[in-house]
Amino acid sequence: MTKEKLDILRHSAAHLTAAACQELYPDAKFGIGPVIENGFYYDIEFSQNISEDDLAKIEKRVKELINRGILFKKKDLPIDEAIKFFKKEHQPYKVELLEDLKMRGTTKMNAEEIDGVGGSVENVSLYTSGNFVDLCRGPHVESAKELNPDGLKLVRLAGAYWRGKNENPQLQRLYGVYFPTNAELEEYLNMLSEAEKRDHRKIGAEQDLFFIDDSVGKGLIMWLPNGVIIRDEIEKLAITVEREAGYVRVITPHLAKEELFLTCGHLPYYKDSMYPGMTLDDGVYYLKPMSCPFHNLIYRHKIRSYRELPLRLAEYGTVYRNELSGTLAGLLRVRGFTQNDAHIYCRKDQIKDEFKKVIKLTMRYFEIFGLKKYWFRLSKWGPEHLEKYINEPENWEYSQGVIREVLQEMNVNFVEADDEAAFYGPKVDVQFKSIVGREETLSTIQLDFAIKTRFKLNYIDESGKENNEVFVIHRAPLGSHERFLGFLIEHYGGVWPLWLSPIQVAVAPVSEKHIEGAKKLVEEFVFQGLRVFVDESNETVGNKVRKAITQKIPYILVVGDKELAGEDLTLRVRGQDEQIKVAKGDFLRRALLEVKGHLNGQPS
Amino acid sequence: MTKEKLDILRHSAAHLTAAACQELYPDAKFGIGPVIENGFYYDIEFSQNISEDDLAKIEKRVKELINRGILFKKKDLPIDEAIKFFKKEHQPYKVELLEDLKMRGTTKMNAEEIDGVGGSVENVSLYTSGNFVDLCRGPHVESAKELNPDGLKLVRLAGAYWRGKNENPQLQRLYGVYFPTNAELEEYLNMLSEAEKRDHRKIGAEQDLFFIDDSVGKGLIMWLPNGVIIRDEIEKLAITVEREAGYVRVITPHLAKEELFLTCGHLPYYKDSMYPGMTLDDGVYYLKPMSCPFHNLIYRHKIRSYRELPLRLAEYGTVYRNELSGTLAGLLRVRGFTQNDAHIYCRKDQIKDEFKKVIKLTMRYFEIFGLKKYWFRLSKWGPEHLEKYINEPENWEYSQGVIREVLQEMNVNFVEADDEAAFYGPKVDVQFKSIVGREETLSTIQLDFAIKTRFKLNYIDESGKENNEVFVIHRAPLGSHERFLGFLIEHYGGVWPLWLSPIQVAVAPVSEKHIEGAKKLVEEFVFQGLRVFVDESNETVGNKVRKAITQKIPYILVVGDKELAGEDLTLRVRGQDEQIKVAKGDFLRRALLEVKGHLNGQPS
Repeated sequence: MTKEKLDILRHSAAHLTAAACQELYPDAKFGIGPVIENGFYYDIEFSQNISEDDLAKIEKRVKELINRGILFKKKDLPIDEAIKFFKKEHQPYKVELLEDLKMRGTTKMNAEEIDGVGGSVENVSLYTSGNFVDLCRGPHVESAKELNPDGLKLVRLAGAYWRGKNENPQLQRLYGVYFPTNAELEEYLNMLSEAEKRDHRKIGAEQDLFFIDDSVGKGLIMWLPNGVIIRDEIEKLAITVEREAGYVRVITPHLAKEELFLTCGHLPYYKDSMYPGMTLDDGVYYLKPMSCPFHNLIYRHKIRSYRELPLRLAEYGTVYRNELSGTLAGLLRVRGFTQNDAHIYCRKDQIKDEFKKVIKLTMRYFEIFGLKKYWFRLSKWGPEHLEKYINEPENWEYSQGVIREVLQEMNVNFVEADDEAAFYGPKVDVQFKSIVGREETLSTIQLDFAIKTRFKLNYIDESGKENNEVFVIHRAPLGSHERFLGFLIEHYGGVWPLWLSPIQVAVAPVSEKHIEGAKKLVEEFVFQGLRVFVDESNETVGNKVRKAITQKIPYILVVGDKELAGEDLTLRVRGQDEQIKVAKGDFLRRALLEVKGHLNGQPS
Repeated sequence: MTKEKLDILRHSAAHLTAAACQELYPDAKFGIGPVIENGFYYDIEFSQNISEDDLAKIEKRVKELINRGILFKKKDLPIDEAIKFFKKEHQPYKVELLEDLKMRGTTKMNAEEIDGVGGSVENVSLYTSGNFVDLCRGPHVESAKELNPDGLKLVRLAGAYWRGKNENPQLQRLYGVYFPTNAELEEYLNMLSEAEKRDHRKIGAEQDLFFIDDSVGKGLIMWLPNGVIIRDEIEKLAITVEREAGYVRVITPHLAKEELFLTCGHLPYYKDSMYPGMTLDDGVYYLKPMSCPFHNLIYRHKIRSYRELPLRLAEYGTVYRNELSGTLAGLLRVRGFTQNDAHIYCRKDQIKDEFKKVIKLTMRYFEIFGLKKYWFRLSKWGPEHLEKYINEPENWEYSQGVIREVLQEMNVNFVEADDEAAFYGPKVDVQFKSIVGREETLSTIQLDFAIKTRFKLNYIDESGKENNEVFVIHRAPLGSHERFLGFLIEHYGGVWPLWLSPIQVAVAPVSEKHIEGAKKLVEEFVFQGLRVFVDESNETVGNKVRKAITQKIPYILVVGDKELAGEDLTLRVRGQDEQIKVAKGDFLRRALLEVKGHLNGQPS
């Protein structure tokens, strides 16, 4: 089925939803009802707000209208007659849209707004389906029979200001989905329910990982202790792995003078995506949108010898970008984030080797986190669009060639995209299919020909001469803490592998008199670095265990008289219903091995 | 000797320095020559710039003038005659000062300027010493004989714009020191030379720890890999020690909306010390000058039970404060710094215990770093100045009492200071005498009665009722990375204990053919976490060793045929002239034990 045809079906379903509401709630006033991804919505004002529970009743009535096979009839009308008609029908929102159309020739509030209403300024078209008449440009199905009643579902109710302005009345927005076949609807609903269960905001709140506070600001994450544990473990992993891979760490300020951002070219070209400047007594300062200009200064701080290259400067750096507040959401769209950043300064003959190492490193990370469905995309320049690219044809061809060789030699899945590179050099994106079916770019490796000139980078070669062919690789295999954690929460559905789990062992003392003994019993676990929580609440032992299960704690120990007397421990392993008996020493060894397993390439 | 008397001697020494210069450089034009701490300076324009080497010659002549016993004679003159006199003498700077005095009644450029010139607008006083005549308010010694020639030394030459304005000519500033006794001068010079050797900027550059770049901005530190190693080790120590002490870690953004800073009261009262606001589409944002308001939101994020208290929230948080650019210097006066911060939320009956724990923690840190010369200062409110303090008399008296008890029970040196507390509660400062004799506050522990009201903090008590007596302790035992590292560099003079040393083991292969073998030999050291540097340069082995000694590397291994053949290692221990032989395993064990020593309370 074409997208056009599917949109017609979905748009007709929106009309039918309004028609059903009109039958059930004769006082309802109708806003607009456009098609969106997977379905549609309709904004409606009810004389009394309806609840989510009412959606079933409305959905039932929509299906009846489909089964009844009501027809969609189009009628063209002079605009003033249409206004008169909707006034008589007590539909003020439709009247407002028409008057707007008459005055301004459009109903759009701004360029982004969905424009569901149309017609010339003299004439407009109305669609009648059953008793419901709507102002609409169409097209629609001829008969509701063309729709599959089992492919439709009203899924959600939300508040929506009329025309998106918060000084206007708040209507209720009914979200519906429509698919031609039952199987497609079912698949979609499954994915939706999985995505809802795994929603990183939901799990983030349940597990006390992070929150966002209005007085701090949207898009600025407040990390709670459990979230910090996970962040820190990931950072520790990166520091360990990258130290082994020959990276050295630097730390640079979160802001710098205008001059620096002029040198790197971020000002004035990307000024809008930066926070506004702050004028101090010695110049204008900007928060950094990325760390590379600072790393370039560190490279340039000393005369570099060819022996020092490749120089790999790593920083888990926090950067700030000014996004519109309306676009911010959870951990995925933020205004400040901490990147697993590094810049590799190398000679031309080292590009291939360094690219290979970065790709290996990236794949090692993915293996550790159990990420499998990914592929690479090599974005190249377009020699036919020279104006878009830095004018170093020989470097473009050479580096694209060696990067392709790397991907081939490593025998990984990759595609090539012409004319998709950045201005300053080719790049390799790592594309990923998330557990809820979204395609995402998880990390990017970019080669940069431009920095060497902008920052006058060079090194002393073997013959003692200055060479200014310094190539820079930007890389952030783990992206940012914010995005990667948002992604990981969804990936694991909150069931963290042991090494990342904020609490690794929950201890449920059988009664209050076992609390002190239980604490003593696990002292060695804590000393060995395990994260242990002893539940000292007044709950029954059953409730303590149930609570720990809900929190998805990997190991739960029940401690009563026998355990305190030195018998084997009573252990409940996450995902298993049975309790098992295990010697204390064996459990500790097992847990410690498991915690370190990810470092030995053992996937979690 | 009184300060007044000493100032007269130093001021007279300044005149004698000018008089000596006039004799040696008859063309010299004189600016001003005031008294400063420990001595004086004189700003002089020479027809040809002099060099540091010339200071000895000038100093010699000053001492001759002293021994000659030339007299200081005062003469009052009408201002116009004085102008005529200095015109004849070709002293344009003196003429300018006099004309200024005549016009404006003062020679001050601004309130801060040292005002060494005086007189009423009609008459001015001139002092003649030998052939040198100076415009001067005095007083002076009667005879140069009153000075001790061996107590005087010209120590430094610097450039200085006439009257501090960079559009004016640049003069040369001769710095001198003067002490009544030889012993005092000697002590001062020793301290000066020690301070110079230990200057954190000098060692910071020598050891590649950090730098400051003009295009980033003054007061914003760029941390190089060696500096990051030290920072990270200190942070790791704090994280370990504070985890054991029951702290949990949070991470909060570097900025927040105006609203938050209005709630905590930082705006508008301390607006000048904050960076200017940044207006985004949903409000005005400010960089954080401290982390506490964020921690208060984390406390308030959940309903807290009495069981959860004390709650100790720790963050190595980077904060930004707007200082005047002219006041910034090295690591000690900066515009951005990362604090060893934490806030302890506790009940009233927990204040004493928590204060004691914080003081113990602080003392443990000091012991680890080998800091011994410190004492505590308890700053209390002043009941006679009620307007300066939050109106909770009972809490003031109670908390000051329990803090005093803590200090007494711990048997530490402490003093009490009345009317020196912060507005919101009493505090304990840790005062320290630095190796170069400066008294500094290394850390502060503050109790806060105000936050509970401002942020509406509370907890549910044992009876299920809401209690809003939540007390907050602000503490940062290690201050900020910047200040503490600046301090530590000076303290250790760059001779880092093993655990902090950026390079722990330097390896000097005897010749190029031993490089690969040497790298293999130390593989296990690296694997065990030691920081090893194998010198692969073309230098001789002697030069490699000398370079490592200069860099103050704790252990130097010389690797040649014998060592590669499996014989004992040839080891040079920092501070010892003799090389020793040691079995590889023994060396590794010794080094690893030493690295961890500081955690076992063994001072470094």
